[in-house]
Amino acid sequence: MATDPDCIFCKIIQGKIPSKKLYETEKSYAFLDIGPVAPGHSLVIPKYHAAKMHELPDDSLADLLPIAKKIAVATGADQYNILQNNGRLAHQVVDHVHFHVIPKPSQEQGLVVGWPTTKPTPEELQAVHEKLMQKL
Amino acid sequence: MATDPDCIFCKIIQGKIPSKKLYETEKSYAFLDIGPVAPGHSLVIPKYHAAKMHELPDDSLADLLPIAKKIAVATGADQYNILQNNGRLAHQVVDHVHFHVIPKPSQEQGLVVGWPTTKPTPEELQAVHEKLMQKL
Repeated sequence: MATDPDCIFCKIIQGKIPSKKLYETEKSYAFLDIGPVAPGHSLVIPKYHAAKMHELPDDSLADLLPIAKKIAVATGADQYNILQNNGRLAHQVVDHVHFHVIPKPSQEQGLVVGWPTTKPTPEELQAVHEKLMQKL
Repeated sequence: MATDPDCIFCKIIQGKIPSKKLYETEKSYAFLDIGPVAPGHSLVIPKYHAAKMHELPDDSLADLLPIAKKIAVATGADQYNILQNNGRLAHQVVDHVHFHVIPKPSQEQGLVVGWPTTKPTPEELQAVHEKLMQKL
């Protein structure tokens, strides 16, 4: 199992830094975010250390969302967001993959989403499609 | 397999509405978002119809992130967000679970994140922890 001795989340998994643990499996760990944007804001992380989502093995990835589901239910939130950020520009702060479970109780609390929608032409969309299909 | 005859994403899965398909498994389907916030913006959805993430069976959930990973790699994006919204207030528009894979090539493109962090006291955090633990 990949681990990084300097990573704060690896230390939390190992119990070297305390956390408000919510759930644990062989492959994953979940705990409360200490800087919540809404009450119940939690993190689900793989035990396997990787900075970005696409660096994780599939079995680590497959374990995460069923836990996010349990936590979403436990928060009692009717509305909520699941968010995972990769890279500083994309709002990632800790370089160990983490999925946020964020209740959305009101407009002011929880994740605030900005959505700069574009309207590509059919040709532009087709070009993007072809580019991705070459790599899939 | 749960399906809704009036759901636009169920119709896409069934091929009744065209889409720029990227990937498909027994349990999931992925395609380009036609209103992208950045080039390569894609959706990964379960074939099982459910409005919200916590309503999905675990085997449907487990299938989604390995596909999101493949697509993130195919976009070539160094920075990106994975986002899944539940409820109108949380920015959900189509009531069939969908995970956005959103490249973040620049400050202006991609997901814009607002983050109203709070600083709960240790006692407040403890109270939230106890509340969740009762349901986990």
